[in-house]
Amino acid sequence: MKEKIYEILEHEITNENETELKKLLEPYKGGLTGIAQINTIIGDFEYNAKKIVHYINIAQKLELDSVIFPEFALSGVLIEDIAKRHPFILEENLKWLNAIAKITTKTAAIVGFVDKKGGDILNSAAILYDGKIQNIIYKSGCVLINGIKYGISIGDECLNTEEDCDVLINCSASESRNKKEQIKNSVLSFTAKKYAVPLIYVNQVGASDSLSFDGASRVYDVNGDLIACAKSFEEQFLIVNPQQKLGKVYPHTKVWQVPVNSEEVFTLDYEPDLERTYKTLVQGIRDYFGKTGFERAVLGLSGGLDSSVCAVLLADALGADNVFGISMPSKITSDDSKNDARELAQNLGINFTQISVKDMFDVTNNCLQNLFKTVETNWNGRYTKSFTPDNIQARSRAMLLWGVANEFGKTLPIATSDKSEAYVGYATVNGDMSGGYAPIADVTKTKLFALARWLNANRPVKNTIPENVILKKPGAELVIDPNTGKPLIAEDALMPYEFMDEIIWRIENKKENYNEMLNSKFLYERKNPISKEQKIQWLDKFYRRMSTSLYKWSISAPSIIVDYKSINKYEYSQPITSSRINYKGLSDEDINKKIQTFL
Amino acid sequence: MKEKIYEILEHEITNENETELKKLLEPYKGGLTGIAQINTIIGDFEYNAKKIVHYINIAQKLELDSVIFPEFALSGVLIEDIAKRHPFILEENLKWLNAIAKITTKTAAIVGFVDKKGGDILNSAAILYDGKIQNIIYKSGCVLINGIKYGISIGDECLNTEEDCDVLINCSASESRNKKEQIKNSVLSFTAKKYAVPLIYVNQVGASDSLSFDGASRVYDVNGDLIACAKSFEEQFLIVNPQQKLGKVYPHTKVWQVPVNSEEVFTLDYEPDLERTYKTLVQGIRDYFGKTGFERAVLGLSGGLDSSVCAVLLADALGADNVFGISMPSKITSDDSKNDARELAQNLGINFTQISVKDMFDVTNNCLQNLFKTVETNWNGRYTKSFTPDNIQARSRAMLLWGVANEFGKTLPIATSDKSEAYVGYATVNGDMSGGYAPIADVTKTKLFALARWLNANRPVKNTIPENVILKKPGAELVIDPNTGKPLIAEDALMPYEFMDEIIWRIENKKENYNEMLNSKFLYERKNPISKEQKIQWLDKFYRRMSTSLYKWSISAPSIIVDYKSINKYEYSQPITSSRINYKGLSDEDINKKIQTFL
Repeated sequence: MKEKIYEILEHEITNENETELKKLLEPYKGGLTGIAQINTIIGDFEYNAKKIVHYINIAQKLELDSVIFPEFALSGVLIEDIAKRHPFILEENLKWLNAIAKITTKTAAIVGFVDKKGGDILNSAAILYDGKIQNIIYKSGCVLINGIKYGISIGDECLNTEEDCDVLINCSASESRNKKEQIKNSVLSFTAKKYAVPLIYVNQVGASDSLSFDGASRVYDVNGDLIACAKSFEEQFLIVNPQQKLGKVYPHTKVWQVPVNSEEVFTLDYEPDLERTYKTLVQGIRDYFGKTGFERAVLGLSGGLDSSVCAVLLADALGADNVFGISMPSKITSDDSKNDARELAQNLGINFTQISVKDMFDVTNNCLQNLFKTVETNWNGRYTKSFTPDNIQARSRAMLLWGVANEFGKTLPIATSDKSEAYVGYATVNGDMSGGYAPIADVTKTKLFALARWLNANRPVKNTIPENVILKKPGAELVIDPNTGKPLIAEDALMPYEFMDEIIWRIENKKENYNEMLNSKFLYERKNPISKEQKIQWLDKFYRRMSTSLYKWSISAPSIIVDYKSINKYEYSQPITSSRINYKGLSDEDINKKIQTFL
Repeated sequence: MKEKIYEILEHEITNENETELKKLLEPYKGGLTGIAQINTIIGDFEYNAKKIVHYINIAQKLELDSVIFPEFALSGVLIEDIAKRHPFILEENLKWLNAIAKITTKTAAIVGFVDKKGGDILNSAAILYDGKIQNIIYKSGCVLINGIKYGISIGDECLNTEEDCDVLINCSASESRNKKEQIKNSVLSFTAKKYAVPLIYVNQVGASDSLSFDGASRVYDVNGDLIACAKSFEEQFLIVNPQQKLGKVYPHTKVWQVPVNSEEVFTLDYEPDLERTYKTLVQGIRDYFGKTGFERAVLGLSGGLDSSVCAVLLADALGADNVFGISMPSKITSDDSKNDARELAQNLGINFTQISVKDMFDVTNNCLQNLFKTVETNWNGRYTKSFTPDNIQARSRAMLLWGVANEFGKTLPIATSDKSEAYVGYATVNGDMSGGYAPIADVTKTKLFALARWLNANRPVKNTIPENVILKKPGAELVIDPNTGKPLIAEDALMPYEFMDEIIWRIENKKENYNEMLNSKFLYERKNPISKEQKIQWLDKFYRRMSTSLYKWSISAPSIIVDYKSINKYEYSQPITSSRINYKGLSDEDINKKIQTFL
């Protein structure tokens, strides 16, 4: 019987299946609750209200006791900055809430919205029924609905309730992050068990700029056991009865099963998190495009890992027809790269063309060399080893992509650089780091290799990414390495990605400093013993490059946050003028000596 | 005698003038206080400690009772984000504080730093003397120094003190903003008068990324009258005795004299704020370059207002030799524009050259037109009226500027777009809005006109900016207007700048919404009556363009905040996916109708 309920819920509710569903729900009456796991658009009250009314309407027809919406269901997010500058938006938000309240009947709707109290803008929940706003809850509070006492809390950091109650409800807009997933599950389960009360957790789904919400709303019983879990990364209306254990557990991604303590050690085994990563990235693209009104993406296909993975993600998010891959070889580009790009596009079924940037490069370089001669007569300090020609190639390519985006409607150019590159500024301003959206900006290189293999194994069409793309060593193919006569390989210019990604991991997850890293054994070292000098050289290079990359972080293209921590500018803001921080620190003795010299 | 004291303080303190100064200070003993108005670098403890020790040393030699440093003297700013991710930085900060304490003698040093208390990172002040940290103050507290009881508060929003005391001290890092200047002065004066206690306010000077501190540290007597005021926008060591009214009032900018209530009405009379604006912009450039290790700037000179004003500011901040102006005409560029650019460069004495972007444009355009033909076979939606050629010109120019910056050491390319343009996205991504620094990003167009005239009248060399630059109507000279056969004028594409700047002003200063603006009389309307339809059209265009400019705001180049409010991303963060906000709002009736259609 339960199964039939959830089978019907897979479809639109019509007059016919409504009657059947009501009959099936009959035995569970008293505490029947709708979980409306919706995807919202920031500040678009009309769009959000339409969804809210839609699910209230269904809940009423099915005579549920209540229907619960996530935190910020009406506004999308806290809209604090917007509300302070454009205060009218809070009034609009209240107008819509009042209008929604008017259509409510016996079924209580619990709707997340933002309210102003004193000078503060607060995440709040309104309890609507019988045509009115009956109650507004800030942080937490209790309400009685059809004889059952619900303890409602708002936000994923607020789970405590003051009074005894029969069922806990948490309205949340809780981001999906690596590591956070497991913590969230533990905390929710623990809370239900601690209070010995069933807990309903209703989460947003969808992406808003850098924030990714995975849905996976759920119900835990008095023992902390999961009795219902909505789908991840999909909008869903799920009916539950927490006291009568009515619910269905839809499959969640593997990352839930990873114990939190295993996240305390750096590993190259990204496998448990790849499905979540993939879904986060695809949802990020789909919602960024959808919510800003864009439909199509144009990207450069170099035949390398970054652009190949981006192309797959874009095709899955927007549809292959809406993706245009352009191979833009320069004179350095190898035939292999061109072929790999073409093969990938064919495998994916995206639009593809090839156009050389050789002429653009030659004219620009010629123009610049003339300019340099003039500048040199007035200014010293011309570099003998210059990156200018490398950058001309990258910028010419970006110019073509932006050109296509400007010429064709609803099209965004794609920035394909990854997280490892971002940390050390190994990307060209107005070049590969420029774009309307950056799909993989929070994915490190070693994880991208794993993701590429995962995509090849797990998508309906297998082996889309040519093996060659995954096997070759990454390099921007912008310059010939004088030592090898071949295009420079990134790891030769930087350091092994595995080592670099562990530095990033240690900063973000362990808050370790330079000296702690120097004194720890890296995974890379266990496999490839290196001298202390080598390790110092790599660490120095990383921190030096990181310090001069702060500007690049500040102008980076919009992207979704995937990892536990990120350098996405909406999560981490470091002043560019803080580039002189000494990350090695000094001993007390050295500091005292220096102070003496200042006297 | 007072005069002699301040004359000596204009020079380095040597063994000779030290003796003389001590003698001159003798009559004021008991409460002699040094105000060390310093310019700091974020996170560079060594640099900041050197300055702190330098002034402690002078204060000790002169046997002052105390020397006061601004809020965050040791760390620069709160470094909250950095400290959470790199916690070692707080330990370093404490090591340096302890080492500084060791060199203190009888003279008390009051040093702003950041401390960790519980989980919070707090702006704090340490009281150092006799070789030790004697006391740490969070928010506010009292200390006894040489028999005088000081009530110390930290931060410009914390001026209250709990206990009775003889002298109030406020350690501050208070930004210089239009409007805020007058408020600050009133609040400080009012506080001194209210408690009937002299008040010493010690402010940072210098710019850190978007933040500009103007110094102007000061002392008010028991009546709230100003008895000392340090220089604005300059590092200074000033000796005062608040109880004995020892002090000197250095001239402050005119904006102080503007009553706060006069700021409630939009005006084109920017004159009172132009000196402050100029100094804020020049300090912003100087410190951004200086603190990140850059020395030289390269910018495109179009012969227009924006780039001309930028060139003057850069020359004043970095020295004319360190500025390279490049005129980069396309086939649309008029001879007038080329001549104006050349004349400006000559007047300023900056380096100058001219190089055509015609070849770059032709090759790129040719390449793109070929590409478009291919794309068109797969994609519909090609615009019949395209901005692509305009953008190619702007991007080719940026490519040359970035090329010079990449090729020559310590050089940054300049983004010349202004605040009015930023609001409505009237600037090209990877074109004129791209750069290592954006000097005038928080200055509206009408204010820039006033600033240009002010620069011509007030700099040592008069009339540097050719009259023609100020007289002609702004336009990007990227496209020919089919209606006139001449380059398109920005106001024809947008709306009158005077009208647009008042919209911006009303949003930032009055938090007005669309309908309030529609129902108010704009300054522009008083002089040029317009129909309601026209007004609606302009308001609609503004809000529509603003909503689709959020992406551009998010990737804008670093710049200094000048106005009371700004869209600098470190002050105002609006999600890009909030582009569908309906700024006109809806009536309750309309909302109720819409809700009915959702059922």
